[in-house]
Amino acid sequence: VASHSRRPHGHRMQAMTPEELEQALLDDIPLARAMALRVAGWDGRHLRLAAPLGPNRNDKGCAFGGSLASLMTLAGWGSAMLRLGDLGADAEVYVQDSQIRYLAPVWQDIDVLAWPPEEEGDAFLQAYRERGRARTQVRAECRLADGTVAASLEAR
Amino acid sequence: VASHSRRPHGHRMQAMTPEELEQALLDDIPLARAMALRVAGWDGRHLRLAAPLGPNRNDKGCAFGGSLASLMTLAGWGSAMLRLGDLGADAEVYVQDSQIRYLAPVWQDIDVLAWPPEEEGDAFLQAYRERGRARTQVRAECRLADGTVAASLEAR
Repeated sequence: VASHSRRPHGHRMQAMTPEELEQALLDDIPLARAMALRVAGWDGRHLRLAAPLGPNRNDKGCAFGGSLASLMTLAGWGSAMLRLGDLGADAEVYVQDSQIRYLAPVWQDIDVLAWPPEEEGDAFLQAYRERGRARTQVRAECRLADGTVAASLEAR
Repeated sequence: VASHSRRPHGHRMQAMTPEELEQALLDDIPLARAMALRVAGWDGRHLRLAAPLGPNRNDKGCAFGGSLASLMTLAGWGSAMLRLGDLGADAEVYVQDSQIRYLAPVWQDIDVLAWPPEEEGDAFLQAYRERGRARTQVRAECRLADGTVAASLEAR
């Protein structure tokens, strides 16, 4: 995940709330609506997204890999947006690459958590503040109700 | 991409045609329907999927990364299904992990091509025939009308 400022399609991100993020995703991304995505939590670092299994199932009846990939990607993207929004930054955030692991089938509603690396501290926001451009890594996981990690994503 | 036989939810895949693959995707995966996915070609090795930009756009108006990831994953998955179907195999195909690169924004309808590695030859199908279980790598790309590779996926 990287971020740019002053791009033609940059988002005004003045302290966007998680509720506003959810509304923006549902308004602007038809597939977020089709997935019935919901922002389920934000503590300033960890963003949680949820989606019901129904619209996100595959041919086997468990969660479609594309839904898991989309939700983990959006969680990583959204967490960077919210962190930059806290700066009042007019930033564009995009995903450069990602590595996804599918570890266990998901036979329940989807719950995804994304967060920046511990060791990063404020380096990402500071770099953005100084250069108007920064790169961060983000990790996201889809966890089952019993805590099992069913899928993971590492993205820049 | 790996494949198993005799799983409870395995697919009967007796020489599935590309048309039947499209119908199965649209019938069984709500998100494939939401993306308005279409099977655009199959030559026995290369599977091409297409989808209009409209339902697959993001907040910037270009293609949503989750749609690109989903379509490239389905193309890889579908190409393995069709190859196994040619064997009359009752196989279950799933994606284990994938690496995705987003190289350029896609401001047009989405066109995705997936194919197995050249060097693999018939090793995948032969392993499946002998052991009822096999693993293959697959590559997929989203290409623009001018041939530019806008996104790529490597998956097992």
